[in-house]
Amino acid sequence: MKVAKQKSQDLARLAALVRQMKVGMLTTVEADGSLRSRPLETVEVDGEGRLWFFTQAHSPKSVRVEAADHQVSLSYADPRDEDFASISGTARVVRDEDRMRRLWSSGLGRWFPRGLDDPDLALLEVRIDKAEYWDEPRHENVKIGTLSAQR
Amino acid sequence: MKVAKQKSQDLARLAALVRQMKVGMLTTVEADGSLRSRPLETVEVDGEGRLWFFTQAHSPKSVRVEAADHQVSLSYADPRDEDFASISGTARVVRDEDRMRRLWSSGLGRWFPRGLDDPDLALLEVRIDKAEYWDEPRHENVKIGTLSAQR
Repeated sequence: MKVAKQKSQDLARLAALVRQMKVGMLTTVEADGSLRSRPLETVEVDGEGRLWFFTQAHSPKSVRVEAADHQVSLSYADPRDEDFASISGTARVVRDEDRMRRLWSSGLGRWFPRGLDDPDLALLEVRIDKAEYWDEPRHENVKIGTLSAQR
Repeated sequence: MKVAKQKSQDLARLAALVRQMKVGMLTTVEADGSLRSRPLETVEVDGEGRLWFFTQAHSPKSVRVEAADHQVSLSYADPRDEDFASISGTARVVRDEDRMRRLWSSGLGRWFPRGLDDPDLALLEVRIDKAEYWDEPRHENVKIGTLSAQR
């Protein structure tokens, strides 16, 4: 997993928590209005405050991301250390072959057995709109506002 | 945390995963359409497939649960063991003093310092509509349909 230098201390701590937990639960709004979450392995936190994941362009989550106004949440939890992070974001499916090649690692073959040869392989980009984390030992709730406010 | 006998093997495994991880991330739809997640300590999985949490009746999450058609998701993650569970459910705020007394434990004072004396203290009930879990070592994705189908 690649983590770029972040624009603020709060974002740097958030990125460190994401790196520690690595797998986030992505929640989308389904067609019937219900909410659905599934685990996704984070492959990059870039310097623009975007998180990157591999997906398949025609998977249910990709379809829901495009349909439901792109609104998603990502949550990261480590119940043993009591570390939690929550991101409210905007997602889109991106086909960027250079980035896919750069971010691919063999361990991902477990989820995407056809790897980079899969014509449906794509990336899911999540832009952080708001985020919070609950940091042990102080169990402090740190709220990170809109990224635009920090630019 | 109390876990009652469950009605099926899949629900029993789900309840065991919830007991193992204990803190779930509750996601609600906010007034602006964004999705927001926050950690909540599970205090009971009852025999009717309902999960119980303490809340404050006027907290933002309680308000959102009542406003947003009661649709929530709950996700439980243990990234070290690669165990994940996801519940799509319907939530409501319940004031049931007997149940609160039965489920209260002193450790919850960390989140609710005024404890059972807090006039705003309430329970959040989540009924499972659908659930899935990803179980190591097989990393099997088990989908649990509507509870009504299992009754």
